[in-house]
Amino acid sequence: MIFHTFTEQSLRQFTESVFLKMGCPIADAQLAADVLLKSDLRGIDSHGVARLSGYVRLWEKERINATPNIRVVHETPTTATVDGDAGLGLVVAPFAMKVAIEKAKTYGSGWVAVKNSNHFGIAGYHALMAVEQDMIGVSMTNASPLVAPTYANERLLGTNPMCYAFPAGKYPPVVVDMATAAAANGKLEIAQRANLPIPEGWVQDKDGKSSTNPHQLKDGGSLLPLGSDKDHGSHKGYGLSATVDILSAVLSGANYGPWVPPFVAFLEPSANPVGEGIGHFFGAMRIDGFRPAADFKDHLDNWIERFQSAKTIKEDQKVIIPGEPEYAFEQERKVQGIPIIDVVVKDLNELAEKLGIEGLS
Amino acid sequence: MIFHTFTEQSLRQFTESVFLKMGCPIADAQLAADVLLKSDLRGIDSHGVARLSGYVRLWEKERINATPNIRVVHETPTTATVDGDAGLGLVVAPFAMKVAIEKAKTYGSGWVAVKNSNHFGIAGYHALMAVEQDMIGVSMTNASPLVAPTYANERLLGTNPMCYAFPAGKYPPVVVDMATAAAANGKLEIAQRANLPIPEGWVQDKDGKSSTNPHQLKDGGSLLPLGSDKDHGSHKGYGLSATVDILSAVLSGANYGPWVPPFVAFLEPSANPVGEGIGHFFGAMRIDGFRPAADFKDHLDNWIERFQSAKTIKEDQKVIIPGEPEYAFEQERKVQGIPIIDVVVKDLNELAEKLGIEGLS
Repeated sequence: MIFHTFTEQSLRQFTESVFLKMGCPIADAQLAADVLLKSDLRGIDSHGVARLSGYVRLWEKERINATPNIRVVHETPTTATVDGDAGLGLVVAPFAMKVAIEKAKTYGSGWVAVKNSNHFGIAGYHALMAVEQDMIGVSMTNASPLVAPTYANERLLGTNPMCYAFPAGKYPPVVVDMATAAAANGKLEIAQRANLPIPEGWVQDKDGKSSTNPHQLKDGGSLLPLGSDKDHGSHKGYGLSATVDILSAVLSGANYGPWVPPFVAFLEPSANPVGEGIGHFFGAMRIDGFRPAADFKDHLDNWIERFQSAKTIKEDQKVIIPGEPEYAFEQERKVQGIPIIDVVVKDLNELAEKLGIEGLS
Repeated sequence: MIFHTFTEQSLRQFTESVFLKMGCPIADAQLAADVLLKSDLRGIDSHGVARLSGYVRLWEKERINATPNIRVVHETPTTATVDGDAGLGLVVAPFAMKVAIEKAKTYGSGWVAVKNSNHFGIAGYHALMAVEQDMIGVSMTNASPLVAPTYANERLLGTNPMCYAFPAGKYPPVVVDMATAAAANGKLEIAQRANLPIPEGWVQDKDGKSSTNPHQLKDGGSLLPLGSDKDHGSHKGYGLSATVDILSAVLSGANYGPWVPPFVAFLEPSANPVGEGIGHFFGAMRIDGFRPAADFKDHLDNWIERFQSAKTIKEDQKVIIPGEPEYAFEQERKVQGIPIIDVVVKDLNELAEKLGIEGLS
């Protein structure tokens, strides 16, 4: 695989100009670019600029509204439902998280369900907005159906990620940001490109049999929930995914389960939707609503140090603190630049040509 | 295995009389018995009256306070920290969940962290308290260290369960109530008694190697997080368990990680605790804080029906809705009685003799 390395600034400018060409207001274009860049900076290459042309294709199909009227449609002092007006999830989600944070400032916590949205990038971006305010951040979203619940032979759930983020003292925030499937679709795509077998327990084929062939997902197969099979707790991964789906969509009025509209523009959304767009769910809780923030951070630092110094199986592989690798990527890539795989560079330059903007070089 | 079947009422009376003998006030004895009975009724035999003598042994060691002064020690309109004063978790947890529910009634949501508590029974009991009020219930707890994080060769986390419960319309509530380990300790105990091999991926031995020997846990081994190994997402199970630990204990001021006091009375708590007792975390959110409760329930019914009628791998194994099997158990056992395995009956009757109360017959 060949990578080209770009500065954060050059990728940011390019991404902003793509969103401006879609007709996004400048503040929205900057925000959406910030969400995508955060993903590339944190080493989650599958959710950054690599998806840019996907967003554009959805906009071309009029499934993304570049100038949405995002608004609160229902609320109490600490809860709200936001209608994203079919806007970019990259813009709708930060709007909703801000609502949660403002409520938490006044009442201790804030919880916001979102309907009528689109793909929101990495869950971690939004949860980290709360962390900056000395709050615990919660962020989740449902997604296009790819995962079969335990015993099922059809795709009823997305990889539905959930994220919890906590501010530490002298260490980076603890960020648990995870898809509720056994393996991310991105990992599967890498195996598909390389034509390499995958571990048992990631996918089942069209007959519901576990398969090591990465192409089975395209041939009527499904991803498996975290836990992989019943013996190893796949009903738990299914339960977590169901939780994300219910909080994000049944609570907000978005589409859920198999009705969630696909991210890819070449697949049409359901002709009989049960809600509007895709759904998200966000939460913010003030640390000092429970104990002084400094005490919490001291103890979280102690937690981190104890886990980092744990006795390990192999000498050279320490226990990893959730969010630590992404933070290390971010520090490195801010200085060294962001490597982008050549097929993505080609895709972005074709996009630039189509939109009439300057390409990456 | 030989079972004896008892009526709910006879087991309830027996359990109440044990808690009364410990010196619990009558309302606390009734509540604690209700929590344990709910577990037996719902088919979670490992967390019901089978644990009764364990609670008594902790009380004998003065690690459980039968007459605690449970109180809110810190709060905002929607958040609170509760000090359980070393009381029974079976009593402390419902107290804390009531605080969360009252806050939610006024402000839309309520969130309560608990320190200085003990084992709280099944997480589902507490979350279902919110469901009865047309709220979403959240319940979690940390627990004695048995689980090794990914790459670790020591036990740093408990089986730390998390529970989310949602009210449906014509169907029973959807209750996702799950340990964040690959397999519950109870399943392991069954294999230990029968001397049968367990699936790969449940435990690792003292050298950190996956083992199918159920006795390895006692010989310096550890349980594995949901996901079992790195390839199958054990870092996600570890991340979920970490989330439960941080919300339950770092936030409340309880002990976390390897410092969580053991449930078994023959193991001493850490001589250098980092907090007080074990920790829990509860939440309640009013459904109508997001959309009318009737709309939510209609859509959750539709969600349930779609998943129940999913295409399955085997003709005779339908997709299970989270909480459905436990609800079915509850309906059946309320009528047919509760089967208790003979070793537990013997244990309870020895307990009765020691306490000078009437045994089960």
